[in-house]
Amino acid sequence: GPLKEVLFFPSTQTCLEHLFTPNSSFPCRCPLPHGKETSFSRLLRHLLSARASLDLCVFSFSHMELCRTILLLHERGVTVRVVTDRDYMTITGSQIGTLRRAGICVRHEMSTAVHMHHKFAIVDGKKLINGSLNWTVTAVQSNKENIMVTEEPELVRPYRLEFQKLWEANDPA
Amino acid sequence: GPLKEVLFFPSTQTCLEHLFTPNSSFPCRCPLPHGKETSFSRLLRHLLSARASLDLCVFSFSHMELCRTILLLHERGVTVRVVTDRDYMTITGSQIGTLRRAGICVRHEMSTAVHMHHKFAIVDGKKLINGSLNWTVTAVQSNKENIMVTEEPELVRPYRLEFQKLWEANDPA
Ligand SMILES: [Zn+2]
Ligand SMILES: [Zn+2]
Repeated sequence: GPLKEVLFFPSTQTCLEHLFTPNSSFPCRCPLPHGKETSFSRLLRHLLSARASLDLCVFSFSHMELCRTILLLHERGVTVRVVTDRDYMTITGSQIGTLRRAGICVRHEMSTAVHMHHKFAIVDGKKLINGSLNWTVTAVQSNKENIMVTEEPELVRPYRLEFQKLWEANDPA
Repeated sequence: GPLKEVLFFPSTQTCLEHLFTPNSSFPCRCPLPHGKETSFSRLLRHLLSARASLDLCVFSFSHMELCRTILLLHERGVTVRVVTDRDYMTITGSQIGTLRRAGICVRHEMSTAVHMHHKFAIVDGKKLINGSLNWTVTAVQSNKENIMVTEEPELVRPYRLEFQKLWEANDPA
């Protein structure tokens, strides 16, 4: 059947340099463990598998390696769209400003009374990543969290429609 | 294929009395809309479908109708186990104390440095409910939230194992 993968957090910290620079011919000399697959490295691999588009709906986004991942996809020509929460986008450490300055389209929940609490991503319109995990260091490295990754069309389609609805509803133009 | 259902929130407020007292022969006279299915009524139906067990992992639990649902399952003889967050179980409006006083087994994350941020439930060991939705009125009635309900064994199994792990790790005995 279609891809179904479940990842639990916290994830142990390992070197992720090989995911960002896969063609480097020099072995990394940083002090973190190398060559170990973790929940977080699996998440990065799924995000970095994007070829055409990444649609991201996330309440809180302060994780710098996830920010680097999104910037790298944008540089590669992947169309990235982000919907986020109005209040959380301006908290200390939020990476939303960095994304905007890099030219990535970010929209936020317009209503002041409502939180945009989703935490899902859709890769190339066909792979859904969804769960409890916000894009923060605390979520990745400390909390009990989960995400599921699936290409089941019956599960992906409703999230694709919901993303489109939120994207259009929060058009600032 | 196995059940796959996706529900988005906020949900509109409707009368849910018929779900709690299905055999009542008197029509409800409350002012809320009747006979309308919503994301929230779907969620209640899935929870109330439990015959043998309900395993619940939830960060924040203050929603009184969800509390009533859990109490009703407990009264019916369904084995209910709850794992929750240490800090959030004591906030104002939390229903965790009500569950404990009714004799339901509740365990909480023991570590003070870590949040138990999951929001999933497993009905009869075979139906998984998972997403961004905390069990609060704000989540149900205001926020942009999602849950997916599935009986895909490949998705349900990892959550069953994770629940068992958290249950055993947080045994206070
Ligand atoms: Zn390294
Ligand atoms: Zn009524």
